Amino acid sequence: MEETEAVAYTITGGSGQYSYSKNSNFQRKAADAAKELINKSIAEKLDADILSSSNTFRLADLGCAAGPNTFVAVQNIIDALEQKFQNQEKISHPPEFQVFFNDHASNDFNHLFTTLPQERRYFAVGVPGSFHGRIFPRASLHFVHSSYAANVFSRLPKEVMDRKSPAWNKGRIHYSNSTDEVVKAYETQYAKDMESFLKTRAEEIVHGGLLALIVPGRPNGTPHSEAFVNRTCEVLGSCLVDVANKGMINNELVDSFNVGTYFASPQEMEAVVKRQGCFSIEIIESVPLERARPKEISSTLRAGMGGTIKEHFGEEILDELFDLFYKKLEENSSFIYDSGNAISLFVLLKRVATE
Amino acid sequence: MEETEAVAYTITGGSGQYSYSKNSNFQRKAADAAKELINKSIAEKLDADILSSSNTFRLADLGCAAGPNTFVAVQNIIDALEQKFQNQEKISHPPEFQVFFNDHASNDFNHLFTTLPQERRYFAVGVPGSFHGRIFPRASLHFVHSSYAANVFSRLPKEVMDRKSPAWNKGRIHYSNSTDEVVKAYETQYAKDMESFLKTRAEEIVHGGLLALIVPGRPNGTPHSEAFVNRTCEVLGSCLVDVANKGMINNELVDSFNVGTYFASPQEMEAVVKRQGCFSIEIIESVPLERARPKEISSTLRAGMGGTIKEHFGEEILDELFDLFYKKLEENSSFIYDSGNAISLFVLLKRVATE
Repeated sequence: MEETEAVAYTITGGSGQYSYSKNSNFQRKAADAAKELINKSIAEKLDADILSSSNTFRLADLGCAAGPNTFVAVQNIIDALEQKFQNQEKISHPPEFQVFFNDHASNDFNHLFTTLPQERRYFAVGVPGSFHGRIFPRASLHFVHSSYAANVFSRLPKEVMDRKSPAWNKGRIHYSNSTDEVVKAYETQYAKDMESFLKTRAEEIVHGGLLALIVPGRPNGTPHSEAFVNRTCEVLGSCLVDVANKGMINNELVDSFNVGTYFASPQEMEAVVKRQGCFSIEIIESVPLERARPKEISSTLRAGMGGTIKEHFGEEILDELFDLFYKKLEENSSFIYDSGNAISLFVLLKRVATE
Repeated sequence: MEETEAVAYTITGGSGQYSYSKNSNFQRKAADAAKELINKSIAEKLDADILSSSNTFRLADLGCAAGPNTFVAVQNIIDALEQKFQNQEKISHPPEFQVFFNDHASNDFNHLFTTLPQERRYFAVGVPGSFHGRIFPRASLHFVHSSYAANVFSRLPKEVMDRKSPAWNKGRIHYSNSTDEVVKAYETQYAKDMESFLKTRAEEIVHGGLLALIVPGRPNGTPHSEAFVNRTCEVLGSCLVDVANKGMINNELVDSFNVGTYFASPQEMEAVVKRQGCFSIEIIESVPLERARPKEISSTLRAGMGGTIKEHFGEEILDELFDLFYKKLEENSSFIYDSGNAISLFVLLKRVATE
């Protein structure tokens, strides 16, 4: 069972109808909303003397997918960095930028590479592998960016798939509205993965380097079940149960399927950063999500999770499932949105000397 | 016509019947033959104090294709480097290795990334783009390796495709046995490309860094028409003429098709390195090529050039062409081989301070 616990959501590659590149406007808007915060991060929080004698500024985007959102985010960062270094008298040559685009080895890097902006002012590089492990040499990065990716687990908590465990997540695919044991299992996995993520990045980022994380989240004090992102997962889960009840798939397949992602509050994020100890919190803000149309949410989730769902349940349910999902989103639109709990977290961390 | 002059041979990706990954044993043997020279290069010619304080050793393979040969070559280099740094008292921590796999953006990086050795002791990175231009930040590489790639032009000499030029290469696809004007056009393009290649690498490689080139070549004093690699091209050209004479393709299509690669002698290589001036020649050796079976040569060329031929002539001629090619190789086997002029050049260059 080891194999099935590992989480590696690979977005749908290429440029077809259900591809991530054609269905990632939702994430694009979240990145756009963070643009000013990125600019502020670089203008106010980056030490201009961070560059060593090599004069290369190394920047990474973790969980970049196959484009094009990553190109927009990276260009924005480069613009802000150029602005920053232009105004530095100490620097004789403008730095050169090397951008490391990272995602799972199964990501469609061919699409990413052939659609790179022609006029880019940086050297582009692809880094295959999970960011839950080490993927860069020690102290080799100056700025790390990750949007809508760091919320994904390295693996599913074992107990939620174990029939004999009190945390068995029967009939659900996520933790909100589930038993306390399931919630606990997800919380524990989140804390473990995020602490390990920070520890790993602390090895890769130079002292004074910055880590900017944008993740779907929930406001402080909001119960899991009231956050927009959880409600969306909840609706998807109920659609899978419907598909099972129609006899298209076995109910046990639903029981054994779990979405490996957690939506933290600013307080939870702060707690894990402080516990880990290698980063100072420079900025932490909740950024409201623009209201998305049901069609957009449905196609976004299909591009992001369609591959994983297909692998678990078979391709034949995809159209039915996402049609149903879209319809339920429409019917429940006010329930999903009107709580006002649709936010991204923007977190800017600085690598501080600890030893 | 600008577009058609640019040369970007992209090997056939994936792992199918005609893929490079299944049909690159020929290049593999050339790399194997260079193994001892690589070991010697690192043991005797690499300055152990080349690493800056960052402790990351950066290594690139230019024209890496989709694997697996590049993994074998890189592992050999890593083994030799580990051996080297193990014996250095000055170094407190063993260095970490970052390996940059480079090829055209159209290369099958997806295949490369999903077939990376599991047990590698280096951080793997893919770099999309032509090595005829800058693809790395200034002074960021310590060792650059390139096998069977640097012989490929950045673009075809215009005049060989120009009906009005005395260098028009009518009825041929390469320069050997062609007119003096065509030979001259190829020689000029080679000198220009190689000088520019060295200038570009000189910017990217740290002072004291090494550049190891393995290219198909010809012995000093050997006429172009007598080198094994030229004879192979010659046979392929004659097969294209046969296919045209059968009426499957227009003769004009053959006239407008040229293979953008040149096979230099050690003397020519030395001359261009000295003229360029940023590198010292540490090793230059001719390495005899193992005799390959006609089937192997045919499938190797199909994996390497099939895509380009398909683009120019259409897919329908591929089977016919390479069957014919294979048969002619068998018939002319002694002519192709028995000259004894089947060699690779191994060249080790060191980046020297020039300014």
